[in-house]
Amino acid sequence: MSALPSQPPTSVAAVGADLLAAAVADQAVPVERVAWQPPMEGTAADLAAVAADPRRGAANALALSRMLDVQASLVAVAPAAEVLGLQRGEFLHAGPPLEWARASGPMRGALMGAAAFEGLVDDPDDAVALFEAGDAVSLEPCHHRSAVGPMAGVVSPSMWMFVLEDPATGRRTFCSLNEGLGKVLRYGAYSPDVLARLGWMRDVLGPLLAEAVEAAGPVDVTAILGQMLQMGDEAHNRNRAGTLMLLRDLGPSLVRSARAADDVAEAFAFVGGNDHFFLNLAMPACKLSLDAGRDIAGSTMVVAMARNGTDFGIQVSGTGDEWFTGPALLADGLYLGDFGPDDANPDIGDSAITETAGLGGFAMATAPAIVRFVGGTVPDALATSRRMREITLGENPRWPIPVLDFQGTPTGIDVSAVCRTGILPQINTGMAGKRAGVGQVGAGLVTPPASIFPAALAALAGRARAAS
Amino acid sequence: MSALPSQPPTSVAAVGADLLAAAVADQAVPVERVAWQPPMEGTAADLAAVAADPRRGAANALALSRMLDVQASLVAVAPAAEVLGLQRGEFLHAGPPLEWARASGPMRGALMGAAAFEGLVDDPDDAVALFEAGDAVSLEPCHHRSAVGPMAGVVSPSMWMFVLEDPATGRRTFCSLNEGLGKVLRYGAYSPDVLARLGWMRDVLGPLLAEAVEAAGPVDVTAILGQMLQMGDEAHNRNRAGTLMLLRDLGPSLVRSARAADDVAEAFAFVGGNDHFFLNLAMPACKLSLDAGRDIAGSTMVVAMARNGTDFGIQVSGTGDEWFTGPALLADGLYLGDFGPDDANPDIGDSAITETAGLGGFAMATAPAIVRFVGGTVPDALATSRRMREITLGENPRWPIPVLDFQGTPTGIDVSAVCRTGILPQINTGMAGKRAGVGQVGAGLVTPPASIFPAALAALAGRARAAS
Repeated sequence: MSALPSQPPTSVAAVGADLLAAAVADQAVPVERVAWQPPMEGTAADLAAVAADPRRGAANALALSRMLDVQASLVAVAPAAEVLGLQRGEFLHAGPPLEWARASGPMRGALMGAAAFEGLVDDPDDAVALFEAGDAVSLEPCHHRSAVGPMAGVVSPSMWMFVLEDPATGRRTFCSLNEGLGKVLRYGAYSPDVLARLGWMRDVLGPLLAEAVEAAGPVDVTAILGQMLQMGDEAHNRNRAGTLMLLRDLGPSLVRSARAADDVAEAFAFVGGNDHFFLNLAMPACKLSLDAGRDIAGSTMVVAMARNGTDFGIQVSGTGDEWFTGPALLADGLYLGDFGPDDANPDIGDSAITETAGLGGFAMATAPAIVRFVGGTVPDALATSRRMREITLGENPRWPIPVLDFQGTPTGIDVSAVCRTGILPQINTGMAGKRAGVGQVGAGLVTPPASIFPAALAALAGRARAAS
Repeated sequence: MSALPSQPPTSVAAVGADLLAAAVADQAVPVERVAWQPPMEGTAADLAAVAADPRRGAANALALSRMLDVQASLVAVAPAAEVLGLQRGEFLHAGPPLEWARASGPMRGALMGAAAFEGLVDDPDDAVALFEAGDAVSLEPCHHRSAVGPMAGVVSPSMWMFVLEDPATGRRTFCSLNEGLGKVLRYGAYSPDVLARLGWMRDVLGPLLAEAVEAAGPVDVTAILGQMLQMGDEAHNRNRAGTLMLLRDLGPSLVRSARAADDVAEAFAFVGGNDHFFLNLAMPACKLSLDAGRDIAGSTMVVAMARNGTDFGIQVSGTGDEWFTGPALLADGLYLGDFGPDDANPDIGDSAITETAGLGGFAMATAPAIVRFVGGTVPDALATSRRMREITLGENPRWPIPVLDFQGTPTGIDVSAVCRTGILPQINTGMAGKRAGVGQVGAGLVTPPASIFPAALAALAGRARAAS
C-alpha cells in the first residue's frame, strides 16, 4: 500500500470485514466502522415478502403500543385448582408442548416431585410409571393457560399462584410462588425437604400472601419493575430490589395479620431471604403485556419465548398460537460448587418472557453486577442492551435505563430484524442439572436456536403472500 | 502550521490547554490528552514540605487501612440523653463550632423547633430570646460527641439515636432518626406538624426500633452499604435500597413485636415510605470508619467534612481536632416546586461525611439515576467518580462499583492531592430554605470552599517542619 497522501482523507467508512478498517486506522485515519451482517441463510425471499406486506408497519406499531399500554397489578394469590381450574392429575410445564418421552431430566424430576406433592404417589420415583402410562395424568404448557413458570415451570392443582390483572382490560396472567435457589422443584429436585417446603408454601405462605394482598390492595408490579431497573435488577436473574419493594408494600398488612406471629415472621424472612422471589411477579407481568400484542395480522413481533428443557419455542403476533421450535441450547456461564458444563441441562423455562418484554438480557446494562452471577463482563452487559436495539421495534418509556442516559429498554423483538441481521435475542438464565433430582448447577448466557426465526419468518411470509 | 509529513507521527501527547490536542486530532493524528492542572495558588512551598515529610507515606497508609478495616454494626437505638449524656438545654448541631449570632436560617429554625420539642418554650418563636441570651442553652457540634446529623443536624436530649459500633474496637458513633423530606426539622422547619412527628418518633418509632434491633441482633450496616452500591444508591441522596434492606432485616422482629399492631404497621409504613431513612445509618457508619483514621502524625487524610450552614469545615488526621473552615457555598441543582436559587441556604449538614468516606458524590457512577434528583448528566456522574480517584489515597474493596468494572469507591481524601491538582471533593446534597421554617427547597451538587485545603496543608507543613 502506498504512503498516505500529504493530506490524509478526513475519514473512511468501513463495512463488513474489519481488515480494511484496521489497516486504515493503523495509519491514523479516522475510521467509522459500520456494523453489518448478512441476513440469515435462505431468508432473502421471505424477508422481501414480509417487507412488502402493507399491513406490517401498522400491525407492529399496534402490537408494540398495546404491549406498552398494559399495567400489571398483583390482585390476588390463590391455588391453581381455583384460578386455573387445574384438576387432579393435570400438570402445567414450561415451554412449548412436550410429552414425557421427550422430557429432560429436570422436567421429569419436577413432574415426579409434583405428583408426590399432589399425593398421586407416595414416592416420587413411582411417578415415572404414572407418566409413562399417561392415562391418569396430562401435561400442558403454562402458556396455554395464561400462565408462566420459571425453569421446569411445573404447576399442580394445590400450588398457590400470583394473579396479575390489567385493570384496563381485566385480562389476567398467573405464576406460581418462588421457592428460592438450589435444591428446588423448578430445577428438578424432589427430595423430601423440597416437598416439605412446597407443603409449607401451600399451608402457610400462600394463604398469608393472599390475605396480605387483599388487605393491602393491588400491588403495581409494572411500577416496581420501573424502579428495579434503577436499582441494579434486570428482573430475570436479579430481582433483589423488586423483592424488597414487594415486602415494603405488603409489610404493614403482614404486621396486621391475625395469623400466628411466628408464621408471619417466618414468611417475611423466607421472602426477604430469596432475592429471586419477585421473578415470579416479573414473569406474569411481562406475559400480561405481551398477550395484549397477540393475534395482530401482519405483525412480526415475538409474543413469547419459552423452553421446556428439550425445545426452545417462540410464538409471533402475526401467526397466532403456532409454536416455532428448535433444540434448546446449553447456556455459557458460571457453575455452582463443583458442577461443570457436563452437569448442565439445555436451556429451560418460561422466564425468557422477560427478555421477550425487554427485560432480562435486554436490560443487562442496568444490572452490571449480574456479570458476577451469569458471567461475561460489564462492557458486554452494556453492549448487549445496545445490540438488542437492532432487533426490537421500539423502547419502553416506563423502563428507562439510567446508565444509557435513560433510554427505555429495547422492546418488541422483530422476527424480520433478527433474520435480516442474524443478531439473536440475548437471554440470561439459571442452569438446571441435567439429571432429575440435582437442582440448580449454575447460571449463564444463552440464545434461542437460530433456526426458529427463519421458520417463523416463512410462516409470516406465507400469510403475507396469501393476504396480498 | 505546515501540512503533515507523508508519514504522520504515531501519536502526540498533549498536556494542559486543549488547543494543541484539538488541532492535532483534527489532522487525524492519535492524541493522548494528559490531565494536568496547576497547584492551588501559594501552596508550592507547603506541598514541598509535606512531600518531604518522611512520615507521610506510612501515616497515610495506616490511616487508610484503619479506616477500611472498620465494620459498622447497628447495635442499639436509644435517647440522646441516655447514650450521649445530653442534658436539658444542650443542643448538638451539624458542622464546625457555631454560635447563635452567626447561625443561618435553617439552623435557627431547627434549634427553635428543638427547644419547643424539649419544652423549653411553648412557642418556637420564643426560643429566639432563649438562644440570644444563651445562659440556659448551649450549642456543640455533633462531631464533638461522636455523632453526625444531616442538614441542621440538631440533636436534643429526648431524640432517639442510632448507635453504631465497631465490634473489633468497641468504638461507637451516633445519629438521630430520619424524619423524611420536605417540611422537617433538619431542613429548618418547626411547624406544629413537624413537632408532632418528632413526638411520634420519640414515643413510638424510637422504642419500637430499639426493641426490633435488640431482638434481631446487630445489623451489619457496612455490608448493606456494599449491597446498596450495586443497587443504584450512593448512600447520600439515594438510600432507597438501604432503607429496604433495613426493613428486610428488622421485619421479622417487627412482626413479633408485642406492641399494638397499628403502631408497628405505621412505623413500618413510615420507614418504607422514606427512601432517605437509611442515610442516618450510612452517615454514622462513615464516621465510625473515619474516626479510626484520626490523629496519625504526618497523615494528610481528611477525616471529616462538615457544614453548619454558615461555615464549611474539615478535620485532617495529622492535625488532630483542629477545624479548617471557610464560607459554605451554594449548591447548584434542582429546586422543588416554585423554589429557586434565591430561596436556598448555603451548604449545610454533616452528611458530607459520606463523601469523606468515599460514598455520595464519590460513588455517583453507581447511582446514575440520581442526576434526576441532584442535577447533572449521567456522563458527569461517571466522570465524577473517576475524577475523585485523583485526590484520594486508595479505593474501598468492600464497596465495588459494578459499572466501573467493580473498582472500589475512591476513598481517603488527600489534602496534598487536592492542593496539587486543584480538584475539589464533589458533594451531592439536599438544599435547605435560607429562611427559618421553610424546609427543603431542592437538591444539588456542591464543593467545599477551595481556601480550606491550603489552610490545612499549611498546618500539616508546619507540623512536618517542626518534626524534621
